[in-house]
Amino acid sequence: MAKYAVGIDFGTLSARAVVVEIGTGREAGSAAMDYPHGVLEFALPDGTPLGDACALQVPQDYRECLTWTVREAMQNAGVNPADVVGLGIDATSNTMLPVDADGCPLCEMRQFASNPYAYIMLWKHHGAQAYAERMLQCARERKEAFLWRYGDGISAEWMMPKLWQIAEEAPEVYTAADRFLEVGDWLAMNMTGQLAKSESMAGYKALWNRRDGYPSEEYLAALHPSLRTLASDKLRGELYPLGTCAGTLLPQMAEKMGLCPGTAVAVASIDAHVSLPGIGLTDPGILLMIMGTSTCHIMLGEEERPVAGICGVVEDGVVPGTFGYEAGQSCCGDHFRWLTENMVPASVEREAAEKNMDLHALLSEKAARLKPGQSGLLALDWWNGNRSVLMNMDLSGLILGMTLQTKPEEIYRTLIEATAFGMRRILEGFEENGLPVQQLLACGGIARKNPLFMQIYADVCGREIRIGRSAQTSALGSAMFGTVAAGKAKGGYDTIREAASAMGGTDPKPVVPDPEAHAVYNELYSEYLKLHDWFGRGGNDVMKHLRSMRRQIIDQRMHMDAD
Amino acid sequence: MAKYAVGIDFGTLSARAVVVEIGTGREAGSAAMDYPHGVLEFALPDGTPLGDACALQVPQDYRECLTWTVREAMQNAGVNPADVVGLGIDATSNTMLPVDADGCPLCEMRQFASNPYAYIMLWKHHGAQAYAERMLQCARERKEAFLWRYGDGISAEWMMPKLWQIAEEAPEVYTAADRFLEVGDWLAMNMTGQLAKSESMAGYKALWNRRDGYPSEEYLAALHPSLRTLASDKLRGELYPLGTCAGTLLPQMAEKMGLCPGTAVAVASIDAHVSLPGIGLTDPGILLMIMGTSTCHIMLGEEERPVAGICGVVEDGVVPGTFGYEAGQSCCGDHFRWLTENMVPASVEREAAEKNMDLHALLSEKAARLKPGQSGLLALDWWNGNRSVLMNMDLSGLILGMTLQTKPEEIYRTLIEATAFGMRRILEGFEENGLPVQQLLACGGIARKNPLFMQIYADVCGREIRIGRSAQTSALGSAMFGTVAAGKAKGGYDTIREAASAMGGTDPKPVVPDPEAHAVYNELYSEYLKLHDWFGRGGNDVMKHLRSMRRQIIDQRMHMDAD
Repeated sequence: MAKYAVGIDFGTLSARAVVVEIGTGREAGSAAMDYPHGVLEFALPDGTPLGDACALQVPQDYRECLTWTVREAMQNAGVNPADVVGLGIDATSNTMLPVDADGCPLCEMRQFASNPYAYIMLWKHHGAQAYAERMLQCARERKEAFLWRYGDGISAEWMMPKLWQIAEEAPEVYTAADRFLEVGDWLAMNMTGQLAKSESMAGYKALWNRRDGYPSEEYLAALHPSLRTLASDKLRGELYPLGTCAGTLLPQMAEKMGLCPGTAVAVASIDAHVSLPGIGLTDPGILLMIMGTSTCHIMLGEEERPVAGICGVVEDGVVPGTFGYEAGQSCCGDHFRWLTENMVPASVEREAAEKNMDLHALLSEKAARLKPGQSGLLALDWWNGNRSVLMNMDLSGLILGMTLQTKPEEIYRTLIEATAFGMRRILEGFEENGLPVQQLLACGGIARKNPLFMQIYADVCGREIRIGRSAQTSALGSAMFGTVAAGKAKGGYDTIREAASAMGGTDPKPVVPDPEAHAVYNELYSEYLKLHDWFGRGGNDVMKHLRSMRRQIIDQRMHMDAD
Repeated sequence: MAKYAVGIDFGTLSARAVVVEIGTGREAGSAAMDYPHGVLEFALPDGTPLGDACALQVPQDYRECLTWTVREAMQNAGVNPADVVGLGIDATSNTMLPVDADGCPLCEMRQFASNPYAYIMLWKHHGAQAYAERMLQCARERKEAFLWRYGDGISAEWMMPKLWQIAEEAPEVYTAADRFLEVGDWLAMNMTGQLAKSESMAGYKALWNRRDGYPSEEYLAALHPSLRTLASDKLRGELYPLGTCAGTLLPQMAEKMGLCPGTAVAVASIDAHVSLPGIGLTDPGILLMIMGTSTCHIMLGEEERPVAGICGVVEDGVVPGTFGYEAGQSCCGDHFRWLTENMVPASVEREAAEKNMDLHALLSEKAARLKPGQSGLLALDWWNGNRSVLMNMDLSGLILGMTLQTKPEEIYRTLIEATAFGMRRILEGFEENGLPVQQLLACGGIARKNPLFMQIYADVCGREIRIGRSAQTSALGSAMFGTVAAGKAKGGYDTIREAASAMGGTDPKPVVPDPEAHAVYNELYSEYLKLHDWFGRGGNDVMKHLRSMRRQIIDQRMHMDAD
């Protein structure tokens, strides 16, 4: 009799659940749902306007998606709930919220309903850039040892700068919060009734290390007096390795989700990381790109080394027994969402409607007819800042080369190329730092859906790329951790390696680079690097200057509106 | 009994005729018509594909527009043809065509119908950039005296580089041509049956000077052997000052146009220049911006001085008794046409339709709500190259500062700001070179139709701007030259100054700069200048590199298609 595991993946815009057959990895059923409120960028649900660079969410959206997608996926699968041995979840990390002693989100209390700081701060909330810069400066002055594990940089997306922003700008929220939790840990707690925090989330996103713990009280106090006791207070709670059983499903949750009470629930994983077992590979030398809203790059190594521009290296952080390096591009698919919403003309929309095609499919089809270099365009892929070697969220997008002949599909293609150049910079960063990339893999929606994208990536890097077999690698990987939480005795697995090798895999045919295209892209890449360094390393600080002017004007206008 | 003059203005995309009352300048009637084939950028009418940076036109379009607009304007005016004393025309300059001994366009002969070089090359045809660069280099090496009158630069838009391109790339067209004519001169010839070429066109666009004539045979031969006899052969023909009577209307043309045979026709003027009398001002110290597809800047001076980045200084070239300096931005309104055709999303188009608004009006309304600096964006206004101090048509457009929050109206506003910064650079160029600007004036479609545009220009420059009273300043100015061609004895005027002072004028209220906005724009302008110099003066030649890659690939593809 087949046994099953459930995996739930909480992305930036939606959640999806899959019911997977243990042993084969076959997906028996799945369901996806958008967060009803999406991402709040300009105003709270009650109309309260937001400042520059905000990206907030509503906790109740997550609860609804959790119960609806699992119930729906179970129905689609037609699986007996008693045959589900375990359940795993993953979520975007650095996506955090303040809760009270009962785990209830502060924004659900009347007095905080209009307070932006009481909502979920999504990973891509970039309001804390100034705090990140001051944290970095202070860490460098104090020669803080943790810094080298994070590529000698601090991202505004991480938990600490966000906490400092809240402590400084909304002390009422900071004080009222019993804890600040990663949304993944909070969801696990919703299911099990007990808090079992993820080592991986804390390791990559909250500067925590298994040997050294969180940054020292002295350092934290040097930032802001309220932060001194962070570790023992607002971030307190036991941390557990991946695959640990966080607890079992509460009866009321089991009922809503269509599962049995007592089902094992794994500690939460980071959405991107969990793709690695999802593609069935758990060995060092692999670089996996998880391509969605943003792109996360996971590299497994045998040792712990400093690498410029990474977001962290954590022992056992992705796969037990290896050091998991994370690097990233804060914007990948988001460029194209922005483009189609803001920049694609009605004429193209009409053509897509006539041909009954998706806008992305039509633009990709047109863009595929262009040769590398034909558009005469070049872009910097920084619409959402730079999370790699430059690590600055005040950097912004650039396109150059436009003429009166420039067409929408040329801009579309140039943005794909720009993200590929950004990716190549990351790959080269690993290799320059003694971590040779033996295999290049990709997964995520873009990797499976857009062949042009993957061909351009292969051509830009001059390397073969293998693509994850599943359309939902993260949810599949989470289901695997669910099997590990259950354990072999209950029909699951004892290690993630076993689960990955039995249930994961890649497409048989890799994407193969075209040598002629690679040669043209080498030329374009060297132009990309010149712009990258000039705008990113102080040759011309215009992007940061413009950003600070923008911020000042928006703040002034908000205050004028408030007066 | 009132007397009238007719002015016809041939722009880039359309022609318009006005019937004007002599003495008052009142517009009794007008009519406009688009060129049926518009601008050929990608293919000839028979489908023959075009190379990179082509902008061609069909001569018959001009003939049709000439007869239709005048007949229609006369009907609208309800004026007796016998009361029309004279007629003037203006056209874009550097817009030229090869003709046979009868003045018939070569492209109308069967053997040349598929030959792009036999068509009208529009001013903004940019295929001759490489020739312009070699011409400049050769002129510098030979220390050619003409160079200083042209701002020490040679534009690919001018006649000579285009002629060289034809001699080199299409010798069959070069040889078959009896003459190459400015389209304005050709139109005047169509009306009168005799060729009377315009001094002004030749002075600004073909390196001709009243004292020195065309460049020397030695210099021309050094470029290409076929060019040696250019002056005495392909460009031969008497040149006449502005306001000269070029001849009188042929009976068959008079009938088609609804006018009387024998009506005086003035020598053709350059479309932008003729605006100066059109606004009623003819004194030194005035800088007039003629804002349309591109922007032309006319400055009148009392002496002849070298000014970096001008397109020419010609004695009596605009208004007799002054030295007319021309500078320009090769792209102004074209940016916004490109933007609305290629980059404005369907959502904005729907909103415009719902509100029954023009797309430009809606985007301007939204953009007007933004403060200077609020968008966080900055652009270089080089979608059609740079015709000013950098004088290079291989430069291209740039936008930076985009984030995921960037909205279409922010890009729209940024492009307006970029053209204003480009304009300020030109204004400062005149002043640095000893030509103080005492009054700033504007005319043309944009100046009258878009208050946001003009406010931004005033704010960027920190100066008042006066706006020409007529919506069709060029056509009005041409009509004035028609009155001069007729002369006082026949009910016209003896000088353009008399005509201008009686018939031209500006709006009573100037656009006044806002000091706060000006301060912000000073900051942004200094950032603009940094980018302008880095990308324009060799700090980073990426734009030129990309352009040459693009050209190569398009040429390869055309040859492959042809094989």
